[in-house]
Amino acid sequence: MEKPLILISNDDGIGWQGIRTLTETIRQLYPDADVAVVAPLHHQSAKSSAITVGMPLIINVRHNEPHYRVIAVDGTPADCVKLAVSKLLPRHPDIVLTGINHGFNSGTNTIYSGTMGAALEAVIHHVPAVAFSYSEFSPDCDMTVCVPVIKEVLSRVMPAIENGTFPKDICLNVNVPKVTSPDELRGIVVTKADMGRWVHEFEEQVDPYGRTIYWTKGHYTAGDADDHDTDTYLLGQGYATIVPCQVDQTAHNTITALKQIL
Amino acid sequence: MEKPLILISNDDGIGWQGIRTLTETIRQLYPDADVAVVAPLHHQSAKSSAITVGMPLIINVRHNEPHYRVIAVDGTPADCVKLAVSKLLPRHPDIVLTGINHGFNSGTNTIYSGTMGAALEAVIHHVPAVAFSYSEFSPDCDMTVCVPVIKEVLSRVMPAIENGTFPKDICLNVNVPKVTSPDELRGIVVTKADMGRWVHEFEEQVDPYGRTIYWTKGHYTAGDADDHDTDTYLLGQGYATIVPCQVDQTAHNTITALKQIL
Repeated sequence: MEKPLILISNDDGIGWQGIRTLTETIRQLYPDADVAVVAPLHHQSAKSSAITVGMPLIINVRHNEPHYRVIAVDGTPADCVKLAVSKLLPRHPDIVLTGINHGFNSGTNTIYSGTMGAALEAVIHHVPAVAFSYSEFSPDCDMTVCVPVIKEVLSRVMPAIENGTFPKDICLNVNVPKVTSPDELRGIVVTKADMGRWVHEFEEQVDPYGRTIYWTKGHYTAGDADDHDTDTYLLGQGYATIVPCQVDQTAHNTITALKQIL
Repeated sequence: MEKPLILISNDDGIGWQGIRTLTETIRQLYPDADVAVVAPLHHQSAKSSAITVGMPLIINVRHNEPHYRVIAVDGTPADCVKLAVSKLLPRHPDIVLTGINHGFNSGTNTIYSGTMGAALEAVIHHVPAVAFSYSEFSPDCDMTVCVPVIKEVLSRVMPAIENGTFPKDICLNVNVPKVTSPDELRGIVVTKADMGRWVHEFEEQVDPYGRTIYWTKGHYTAGDADDHDTDTYLLGQGYATIVPCQVDQTAHNTITALKQIL
């Protein structure tokens, strides 16, 4: 790609550390690219593929040059990608990058993640996408360990998009384990999503008005602890994981059985 | 099932016509069942699998007898199912039913739908689920045409759950076409989701403050107009459609190719 248009979004919000690290890395790596950051004005964590209907989206253009645009959108991550592709960008982006998310998005968390919601919205528009997540939730965490992973993944993905070998209509869900230095990273592996779930999901409290209220909490547990070829397992072993994801949620292998029942 | 526990939720909000029609139908159909309605206090259309993090969920118990509970939750559809299964219900539900959604949820709309978000959350908790959607968006539409479809689908699904032939870890996405009488319905078919998208997605306006604002609008177009074995196509032909859906979004068939690239 001579002058790619790279769209960057996230779910934590346009001011967060993760998207700043991702944007700086991309601008250094592709100095000739046009980079557009179109990201939520407010925190939109766990917004999945939610979109805004019935209320308008309001934008705030913060930087507006052909090689570098920054636009905050008062909406969800999927809204940002939808609006950018449909209205705000001068041409179809060549790739959409999302993150770096503060917190892991492995396993069934894919379905809750706004970082993945933005990436999947790109796929609906037939734009390849890569979502990056780091296994630490704190807003001020050091994400420099993600930089070599981003560079390595894109050094493979960008040529594959250009030469047409990148699979159609997928995005990549990249998770980086929490390590203190890049040397501790044991490698980057392509795998599948683990089908676990959160347990002890809520903590009850009585609020000052006497009401019982419920806070989302708990911890994520793997679906099949014996399956070592999953993102959650490998992430826990110190590998960065890559899971290709698609929009289609049809359980194709159950259709024949269901035709018998229904 | 001697005394099944049936959990009902939706995304339009607990007061809407669709969930009232669904609840009345279920209570008539299964007079011996325990029915629990746990649904969003506010309109949560297009909320996908979004969940509330960092803020508490507040509930409002409106009816609380063992055979019939009604609880409004100030959260998303997925929050409602999560909280009901984890905290509010006396035992694991036997099935989760969501809808009737005001508006179709065929094709890639599966990914945006809160009705489907609630059903997929049930699947994460290993509870079978059926989501019902009607192809009309208006809040006061007559949904009686959906009733025979609900009855027919559940007359097959409930025994299959009981005798263990219902496929594990899926939910059903049922769409009912807009017809004026049940006689016009051409049948109920099991099929796959269409991979289309919305076009002309936004309409611009200048608001009273001089800002350009963007409203979600447009129309949904099929991904492959020549593929007649999809929910969107068959719904347009007057069939009620059933698509089995899973939580896993891994694009398994691209893993081998990606291992070569990455």
